[in-house]
Amino acid sequence: MAKYTLGLDFGTESARALLVDVATGDLVASAVEAFPDGVIDERLPGSHSPLPPDWALQNPSDWLSTLENTVAAVMRQSGVAGSDVIGIGLDFTACTILPAAADGTPFHTNVAYSDRPHAWAKLWKHHAAQGQADRVNALAEQRGDAWPRRYGGKISSEWLIPKALQMLEEDAALYEAADCIVEGADWVVWQLTGVLARNACAAGYKGTWHKADGYLPADFLAALHPGLARLYVDKVAGPVVAPGTRVGGLNAAWAGRLGLAAGTPVAAGIIDAHAAAPGGGVTQPGVMFMIMGTSTCHMLMGEQEVLVEGIAGVVEDGIVPGLYGYEAGQAGAGDIFAWFVEQGAPPAYHDEAARREVTLHDVLAERAAAQRPGQSGLLALDWWNGNRSVLVDAELSGLLVGATLATKPEEIYRALIESTAFGTRLIIEAFTEQGVAVDSIVAGGGLAKNPLLMQIYADITGRDFAVAGSPQPSALGAAMLGAVAAGPAGGGYATLAEAAAHMAPAPAHVYRPIAAHRPAYDLLYAEYRRLYDTFGRGENNVMKTLRRLRREQLAAAR
Amino acid sequence: MAKYTLGLDFGTESARALLVDVATGDLVASAVEAFPDGVIDERLPGSHSPLPPDWALQNPSDWLSTLENTVAAVMRQSGVAGSDVIGIGLDFTACTILPAAADGTPFHTNVAYSDRPHAWAKLWKHHAAQGQADRVNALAEQRGDAWPRRYGGKISSEWLIPKALQMLEEDAALYEAADCIVEGADWVVWQLTGVLARNACAAGYKGTWHKADGYLPADFLAALHPGLARLYVDKVAGPVVAPGTRVGGLNAAWAGRLGLAAGTPVAAGIIDAHAAAPGGGVTQPGVMFMIMGTSTCHMLMGEQEVLVEGIAGVVEDGIVPGLYGYEAGQAGAGDIFAWFVEQGAPPAYHDEAARREVTLHDVLAERAAAQRPGQSGLLALDWWNGNRSVLVDAELSGLLVGATLATKPEEIYRALIESTAFGTRLIIEAFTEQGVAVDSIVAGGGLAKNPLLMQIYADITGRDFAVAGSPQPSALGAAMLGAVAAGPAGGGYATLAEAAAHMAPAPAHVYRPIAAHRPAYDLLYAEYRRLYDTFGRGENNVMKTLRRLRREQLAAAR
Repeated sequence: MAKYTLGLDFGTESARALLVDVATGDLVASAVEAFPDGVIDERLPGSHSPLPPDWALQNPSDWLSTLENTVAAVMRQSGVAGSDVIGIGLDFTACTILPAAADGTPFHTNVAYSDRPHAWAKLWKHHAAQGQADRVNALAEQRGDAWPRRYGGKISSEWLIPKALQMLEEDAALYEAADCIVEGADWVVWQLTGVLARNACAAGYKGTWHKADGYLPADFLAALHPGLARLYVDKVAGPVVAPGTRVGGLNAAWAGRLGLAAGTPVAAGIIDAHAAAPGGGVTQPGVMFMIMGTSTCHMLMGEQEVLVEGIAGVVEDGIVPGLYGYEAGQAGAGDIFAWFVEQGAPPAYHDEAARREVTLHDVLAERAAAQRPGQSGLLALDWWNGNRSVLVDAELSGLLVGATLATKPEEIYRALIESTAFGTRLIIEAFTEQGVAVDSIVAGGGLAKNPLLMQIYADITGRDFAVAGSPQPSALGAAMLGAVAAGPAGGGYATLAEAAAHMAPAPAHVYRPIAAHRPAYDLLYAEYRRLYDTFGRGENNVMKTLRRLRREQLAAAR
Repeated sequence: MAKYTLGLDFGTESARALLVDVATGDLVASAVEAFPDGVIDERLPGSHSPLPPDWALQNPSDWLSTLENTVAAVMRQSGVAGSDVIGIGLDFTACTILPAAADGTPFHTNVAYSDRPHAWAKLWKHHAAQGQADRVNALAEQRGDAWPRRYGGKISSEWLIPKALQMLEEDAALYEAADCIVEGADWVVWQLTGVLARNACAAGYKGTWHKADGYLPADFLAALHPGLARLYVDKVAGPVVAPGTRVGGLNAAWAGRLGLAAGTPVAAGIIDAHAAAPGGGVTQPGVMFMIMGTSTCHMLMGEQEVLVEGIAGVVEDGIVPGLYGYEAGQAGAGDIFAWFVEQGAPPAYHDEAARREVTLHDVLAERAAAQRPGQSGLLALDWWNGNRSVLVDAELSGLLVGATLATKPEEIYRALIESTAFGTRLIIEAFTEQGVAVDSIVAGGGLAKNPLLMQIYADITGRDFAVAGSPQPSALGAAMLGAVAAGPAGGGYATLAEAAAHMAPAPAHVYRPIAAHRPAYDLLYAEYRRLYDTFGRGENNVMKTLRRLRREQLAAAR
């Protein structure tokens, strides 16, 4: 008799439910539903007062309604009996946090607070706490603290401390009233089980938690703001557990609502990008998993903690219990190509795409595929959205060199793809040169479906690129967490590795480096590294100067 | 009773005749006619055999037929009596040379030679003698010769010696049979007057003639090829005279053909770009004249010979007798903007241009004009077509830095315009820092009609930019040469300066620097210079590496 597990994937715009076969990982049913309030970045629901710039919120009630609807849909579609669902796992955007009362009641449903922006969930891409982040980083640098080295030297405005500090500074009464500040992932599990635990993935990558050292010390927080000193003690209390740990059983109310058995194990969650690693079959050291979309996220497991230059984070138990999870990133990938396609392709290319009923990307990729490496004479630095790894510098910008009057759009398109592949090679080398092995690579996400791009990545890195077999690796990874929470006794698995071994499909395709392309790309990569160092490490700060001047002129124009 | 002078302008595709009032410079009539055979770069007229790559020829018979027709047209249009035309001047592309017999008969009309490509006129943009030019430059460098410093260190494949050497090496019999090799300008004057003289402008800027030192020595030529040793003695004999010198009187046959008086003074010619300087009213030291089109040519007079870094040439009597004419250049200007407009503007911009019945340039310029200096955060090196002055390096290429996901086409468009203005500022500073004064600037050519561009040039250089009043400054300059050849006794002028003082119209407009724009542009210019040195002077040779790889990959693809 087949058993099933539910993977719930909470994204930026929508939630998805996946029902999969525990033994095989086969997809049984899936459903997706957009959040009714979407990303709240103009005004609060029901309000006419505009939010300040750079705010981005979500409505936690949307998470619950979409959870209920999508799970109902997959159960109905599949005809599976609720009692055959052995576990529930979820992945979530992070850092996405909300203030809640001691019983988990969110503040946005409290009429005394619902008209206050800080009562709602701050979405990962809420960027209004940049000032606070700058102060965190400046203070850490001033104190000579070592912990930022776990995060490439700096934390982002998207993370827990800047967001919590912003709440304290802008709405102290609400901050004081909140019994806890909690990640969306952990809050949903709390709603389902009545138990509050903090998943080590979000806590580690976004909350500065460290398994051995714990959170940041109170004196650091007090130096930021006296009222923040007890943040971790008062507001972020609760055990930190590895993703997949059974937090509790599904409570009766939710069991009834979802048509599942009360007590069904619910797993501690995981960040959405990180869930894709086990979903792509990657749970062991030495295999890099890349989620390639608008930006690229690189996940890698290791058996030791190494402070690699410019990584976005290293967290013990962050992805797979017992291993150190490394995360690196490229701030721009698909969005650079999208920028070029929107801004840089002349009408003839649009016309061709329309006539042939293909995308502009298809037209450009087809023409670009006819070129040999280096034939365009172009080379780019892939910093259109700044550089995350290894320079951790949002002020850097894109560079294109080698343009002539004969340069064609498809050549620029290819050079942009190549530049992101050079950036990936540099990240791989940062890991391997600093002692974290990268033996093989698995890729997922939208860009992994682009054959030209994947071949270029294989050629430039000199490595095989396997494409993850699952089209929904994050949601599948979440479903695996449910199977691990159930454990062998509950019809699941003892470890995430075991779950992945059974449930992750074989790679859809493996791209292998073409030997004839390697010498040209090695030559170009040497030049890329040289430009990288010249413009990225302070030798020539033209990009900073241009940013500064741009800001001044935009301010003067207002 | 009004008197008139004829200015004949021989370009790449067509010839133009201008009839102007000697006293005022007012345009009386003009006519233009395309050369029947145009640019001959695929096959010889009447032949089916293709020409090799990089060849570009003209048919000298086209020069005569268009001269006859356009002069007839202006005389007819104007109703001016032939006897009231006091002089004839012409400007011509250069180096555009042909082989001729001792009596001036061109070889392309000789049936024994007419099927041989070398019998036709090699147009200025014939680029098939690059190998020969490389050998000239290598030999000069090996010998440590000083003369190349008059030409920025290197001569071009477009010039006399490479073209003559190519003829000798590829068709020795024809080279031997030719009594002379002559510039088109000088050949047309020879046809009209029966007198062969070499104009100092073409001789100096393209033929390596120097007023004090003469031509290159025979031992240099012999080292290139023994058969070339007597080039100047045998093939390029004849006096070298300043433009505007009376070479002779119009002969009877041509007088009849044109309806002019026999004996009408005919002036030694001048290169077309250089003719624009007097045509724009510039005949005195310290005023830079810029012809701004697909590329930009900078002309400047000085009272001494200074070997300025990277100038295209300095020639005594080259433009104005008694002065040193300096020429510098930017290899790309309008053609860079045209490249971007063709390749880089998305359909919405094309649609807007069509809807408003304006050009794409207008749409981009209008949007670009709304930006403040530095607001785009972009900076470019204007080397899409290599760099002529001051680096004299065709292997350099275009660079754009500062791109982000928010970068818009009009911002790139403006950055490209700015980059060419920075290039001009650098050339001006090369002159002034090396002791050649630039007190003011006059601009002509197509780009001088673009208000946004002209304002940016004024802002970036910090100088007034006067736009030449004549829409045809080259042809007007040629007409002035006719007036000088006539001399005061013939109803003309004693000097070119005097002719220009009477005949050049006042500037159409003067663009003055906007003080508020200067600080941002000074900052950007400092960054431009730094990039210029980094990528142009050997510190980072990525552009060379990219060119080399491109050539290798294109060769491998064949």
